[in-house]
Amino acid sequence: MRLLLTTAAALLAFTTPAMAQETEVDAALDQLEARIDRLESMNEIEIVQRTYGYFVDKGQWTHLSNLFTEDATLEIGGKGIFIGRERVLEYMQTAFGPDGANVGMITNHMQFQPVVNISPDGDTGWLRGRAWVMASSGWGLPLYEDAFERGEDGVWRISRLTGPFTMYTNWEGWGENALNNTWPDKFDPPPDLPPSTVYLTYPAYYIVPFHYPNPVTGEAFAPDTGQVGAYHRPPGTAEQIESLQVGRPADGTQPIALPPPSE
Amino acid sequence: MRLLLTTAAALLAFTTPAMAQETEVDAALDQLEARIDRLESMNEIEIVQRTYGYFVDKGQWTHLSNLFTEDATLEIGGKGIFIGRERVLEYMQTAFGPDGANVGMITNHMQFQPVVNISPDGDTGWLRGRAWVMASSGWGLPLYEDAFERGEDGVWRISRLTGPFTMYTNWEGWGENALNNTWPDKFDPPPDLPPSTVYLTYPAYYIVPFHYPNPVTGEAFAPDTGQVGAYHRPPGTAEQIESLQVGRPADGTQPIALPPPSE
Amino acid sequence: MRLLLTTAAALLAFTTPAMAQETEVDAALDQLEARIDRLESMNEIEIVQRTYGYFVDKGQWTHLSNLFTEDATLEIGGKGIFIGRERVLEYMQTAFGPDGANVGMITNHMQFQPVVNISPDGDTGWLRGRAWVMASSGWGLPLYEDAFERGEDGVWRISRLTGPFTMYTNWEGWGENALNNTWPDKFDPPPDLPPSTVYLTYPAYYIVPFHYPNPVTGEAFAPDTGQVGAYHRPPGTAEQIESLQVGRPADGTQPIALPPPSE
Repeated sequence: MRLLLTTAAALLAFTTPAMAQETEVDAALDQLEARIDRLESMNEIEIVQRTYGYFVDKGQWTHLSNLFTEDATLEIGGKGIFIGRERVLEYMQTAFGPDGANVGMITNHMQFQPVVNISPDGDTGWLRGRAWVMASSGWGLPLYEDAFERGEDGVWRISRLTGPFTMYTNWEGWGENALNNTWPDKFDPPPDLPPSTVYLTYPAYYIVPFHYPNPVTGEAFAPDTGQVGAYHRPPGTAEQIESLQVGRPADGTQPIALPPPSE
Repeated sequence: MRLLLTTAAALLAFTTPAMAQETEVDAALDQLEARIDRLESMNEIEIVQRTYGYFVDKGQWTHLSNLFTEDATLEIGGKGIFIGRERVLEYMQTAFGPDGANVGMITNHMQFQPVVNISPDGDTGWLRGRAWVMASSGWGLPLYEDAFERGEDGVWRISRLTGPFTMYTNWEGWGENALNNTWPDKFDPPPDLPPSTVYLTYPAYYIVPFHYPNPVTGEAFAPDTGQVGAYHRPPGTAEQIESLQVGRPADGTQPIALPPPSE
Repeated sequence: MRLLLTTAAALLAFTTPAMAQETEVDAALDQLEARIDRLESMNEIEIVQRTYGYFVDKGQWTHLSNLFTEDATLEIGGKGIFIGRERVLEYMQTAFGPDGANVGMITNHMQFQPVVNISPDGDTGWLRGRAWVMASSGWGLPLYEDAFERGEDGVWRISRLTGPFTMYTNWEGWGENALNNTWPDKFDPPPDLPPSTVYLTYPAYYIVPFHYPNPVTGEAFAPDTGQVGAYHRPPGTAEQIESLQVGRPADGTQPIALPPPSE
């Protein structure tokens, strides 16, 4: 009986660590899986953003709009906010023409410097990034702060695209013709909502808020309260008219967009 | 005996899930390992491509050719296809001079916007990417669609490099001197095979086929059937002569390469 | 008794592989964890470097200095070496003004082409990368070889920033006004140590040593023994004076920095 009892005790003693190990191993596997999932998500978000750039290059608007969630928002330059995947497509096809590249046009939209972060639950992501745009009429530098959502199908899509411009100039360089291209644009189609922020580009500046804190200290990046463009002043006032002088093209022309009429 | 039988039964009952757990844990470990391996491979492929860029910068042709598999192919601009690592080295050293940087030359070859995918078996990879080339004579934008193979030594190498140009101009900018640099080039050494595709650069265009489908919808990106350059028309025909007008340099010169003689 | 003995034997036989499995599983988990940790570290280092670029853009010098270890070194252009986080902050605020962006200034500092490697112990990292600098006065191309350390708090910080310039020109392009901006700069504050290397930029060249070997062959990249700038010749000698001619601006001016007085 002693042996039997010993055996039984051994079994019990043995069972416990084995079961404990099973739990521990499962927990360890789950933790590693979550960390791998986060790395994969960061990669997939970068791929969606870079593919967005390749699609703009060649006017692939239908492909491009399918990168967005059904209720996504899009806000580029100073034009205002478009709501929903269908409006994203309408904006692109109305402003830039039907799907496809065109002889005599260049619309390179080169993506770089991505910083991606993922929410603790793993289903929302954010990307700060840049594009260097090389267009027939000139070139510019949007700075993106985009959001992404992972659908029930496990696929990452753009849920919010925000691309204010930092600099906009003709192909000769920013020394001669830097242009404040953030008047609320007049070209069709009209947006669903006005711009979330009105700002000016170089030679003025606008600090696009960071979605993430200082990666070393964890401190949030304080929003800039300085010069963010003419339209933070009341339209028609002396301050606004004066601020409109900031960042005007060196040659006085505004070939791309005009300030809104005084209304 | 009852206890003994119970003990034996317990052992059997116990043994089974433990063995099952061993199998399940092994399977879970294998799956995680495969996902980590895929992420590491994506990183290693990006490092090989970026290092290719750093080696071009400084004329490190022997180092550069060693990034290729023994039977790799290389096709840059409009020159045609070189087959094998030795021909890659011969091409570079003949066209650009012996190993090493040179005073008065700049050949920056800056890599960005990589999209990497890995085959299900983990041993083949593809990269879509760009370079921004800053050369003494001007600058250009190759768009890469490269393939990579993992050798038996576990090392990733370039098995196919394809770098058609999107835009080619002098240092003053694409507004004045954009150049269709895709005539089958005449400089030595001659390639082993003619170009896989003949196309024109800006102001014409060529949509480089994507190695990957739309990352959200999974739809393949349809090949472009429009203007892809003069040479998809029969040489010497009126259509071809007309298409040669597309994308000619603004000043009418073609200092880098001439169209092939009518033959 | 036979059954009891068999049971005991079974237990022993059973115990051994279970314990062995525990060890094997733990070892497998540890190995996977180390590989994930390495991938995460590479990502975090890239994020610190890219965030450094975003902070330079907008003059966020305090945020920027906090990306460095307390005893970090910083060496940019030809100015010499600053030692310690406090000196990094002093350098930035003295040379470029107090924290914050300024109307009329552009200091974009766009980061790309990172190649990151991690030490076997996982606590030191290195990054080769580039920036494309777009400044009001012109633009340039630093090539970074930086080092990073992971603190006891698990956070990666820059422990050494080395950013020699490859090319420096005004906004019109490198064809007209490429400038050798690597005279030991005279602007305040003075560095703690003289430059680690004296070199010239385009049209001369300097091959920045690689922190990593050829990723395919494992061969180290041999340091360049050719033209690395005027100051590897003894000051005041005919050879040095001749070498000073290399890379002078086309118009003869040196608006950014002057050679040191003969001393």
